[in-house]
Formats: sequence, C-alpha cells, structure tokens
Amino acid sequence: MRPRVSVYLGVSLDLRIARDDGRLDWLERYSDPSVGDYGYAAFMATVDTLVMGRSTFDTVLGFGAWPFAAKRVVVFTNRPLDTNPGVETVSGSLVSALESLHSRGARHVYLDGGRLVQQGLTEGVVDALTLSIVPHLLGSGRPLFTNGLPELALQLVGSQAFPTGLVQLRYQRAEAAPGTTGVER
Amino acid sequence: MRPRVSVYLGVSLDLRIARDDGRLDWLERYSDPSVGDYGYAAFMATVDTLVMGRSTFDTVLGFGAWPFAAKRVVVFTNRPLDTNPGVETVSGSLVSALESLHSRGARHVYLDGGRLVQQGLTEGVVDALTLSIVPHLLGSGRPLFTNGLPELALQLVGSQAFPTGLVQLRYQRAEAAPGTTGVER
Repeated sequence: MRPRVSVYLGVSLDLRIARDDGRLDWLERYSDPSVGDYGYAAFMATVDTLVMGRSTFDTVLGFGAWPFAAKRVVVFTNRPLDTNPGVETVSGSLVSALESLHSRGARHVYLDGGRLVQQGLTEGVVDALTLSIVPHLLGSGRPLFTNGLPELALQLVGSQAFPTGLVQLRYQRAEAAPGTTGVER
Repeated sequence: MRPRVSVYLGVSLDLRIARDDGRLDWLERYSDPSVGDYGYAAFMATVDTLVMGRSTFDTVLGFGAWPFAAKRVVVFTNRPLDTNPGVETVSGSLVSALESLHSRGARHVYLDGGRLVQQGLTEGVVDALTLSIVPHLLGSGRPLFTNGLPELALQLVGSQAFPTGLVQLRYQRAEAAPGTTGVER
C-alpha cells in the first residue's frame, strides 16, 4: 500500500518548469501573495508529506527560511545535504519509498520536482495532477513532460482561470492503475 | 502588411499534436460532432484563408472529401501535390507568403500544422493561439512546442472546460510585436 500522490506545479504554456539555468523569473510574479495563492494553502492542508527532488530542495533552501517545517519532507538524492532543515533523504525506487512512508502513516504525498515527477509517471504512481499554466511561452527550458513517459488517461476534475491569466487545470488518473489497490483517497 | 494569424489546435495534455507515426486516435473521440464542435465552426467563420503544412494537407486529404472548398487554402510544400483540390502551394518564408496573401485580400489566416506553427512562432507572426487540451498524456509523439522557439508573452482571452474533459484555452500575443503594425484585427 502506498499514499495518494499529487503533483502540483506552476508551468509555462509550453509546459516548462524552469529556464535551462533553473531560473523561475517568468513564474515569480504569479507567486506574489498579493495576487492570491491559487488554492495552494488549501492543497497543502490536505498533504501530510512532501517528497521532492534534490534540485527542488536546493531551490527551496535558497529562498531563505525553510517553509515546510510543519510537514514531513523526504528528499530524493544520492548526495549528502549541505544543510538539513529536518528532512529525510532517500534514493532508488519511488514506489519503495512511498510504501515505506505509508507504513509510517503517510496518506497524501505532494510529489515535487521535474525529474521526480517524471519518475513518478514512469513508475505509475501519480494519482492527481494540478497544473497552473501561466500565459507565457518560454521557448526553451526544462520540460515537465519529457519524451518516452508512459501513456496515461486522465479525468478533468476542475479548471479555473484567474484575473492574472493563470489557468489552473486539475486532473486525476481516469481509473485505478494496477497496483494502486489500497490507495486511500 | 499581413493578415492576422491564428493557431487553433487540439493537443494532448503533454502538448503533442500527433503520435510519432501521425495517428490522432487519442484525439478522435473529441472530434465527434455528437460531443460538440468546441467553437470550431464559429472560429472558421472568422477565417478567410487557411495556410497549412504539407503533412496536415496530406492528413486532411486522407479524411476523404476536401472540407475547405469554401476557403482559400495555401499549402507550404517543396514537393508537387499528388492531388490538388484547388489549393495554392508556396514555400520559403511565411512572412512573405502572408504579405502576398494580404495584398490579395486575406485578413485572417488559420495557420495549421505542427512544423508550420513552429515556423510561425519563429518568424513572430502568430497573433492568437487556441489550444484544445484533451485529458490524456501521450508520453511520446510530435510536440507542438519544440525547443528553441522564441519567448512570447501572451494574454489569456478565454478559458472553457467541456463535459468531455477537454479544456479550451484562448490566448493572444500580449502586445503588438515589432513589424506587426498594420495588422487588421
């Protein structure tokens, strides 16, 4: 058994998650609290555990104060952390890590980071996908969906356009995939 | 001077326009007239000229009866057509083709075909972009937005979710780009 796994990402219209050098400048004006949080706090309230890639961890650390002190955080990495704000580290199979987390009480995981999301899609463990699409074509940068991921039928759960031009699309997998029996929703 | 140029495409959630072998099976159930036309007829009524790539032309020909008999159609190709249902052919610069079309009365062009849309973005002549996104990750296939296209700020004009799970996002360029003075809207 494993926890439910949700992806929640801000992307450009060409579905890039960062510039090639990692910069998020094109996204930052949409992350301004004065324009709203696009449901982020409500989503986070349903999550008990964050599982993130090393790049995402380092990026979040670079923002200053660690924002996830109230959550269990697991970082996928093969290298020791420079600074540890109270996270676990793990590597290898995402399925195994999720099973271990479930046995320790995790029921809803926020899976974050481009490569880790791609690993989650490859391992077939992504249950829900929320994309906040900003009205901007980057032209190049790090793609969310690389070539060669498995095909996946989804169901649209919700769609909302905001005055900033950001559109949030919410999907869940269209039917339970093999091996997800026991997922708690 | 050139006509206004609109792109209007059905895509997977990972923004692919066809499978690697060109198949559109994942899109076809959304093209069923019984589920609605998602505004296609209304859009087409505003268009006086279609400019399409050779692959798109061959695909449309393969559907049977030529559906665009009432419109001027220009096909971008370097090879003679096997069958000509009454279209013009052209090659080279899209800007030049558009200027020529404008001088002959074209005011609103529907630009169709993956590579030609990429050429249109590269040449900076795409004024409006409507994406009808179906709730399906293909995983591989022909991408709409290849790497290395120019950056482009857009403005969200509309967003609509349909009962089938298709979401239609409508954008226009955020401000007139250099060289588009005189575009008639």
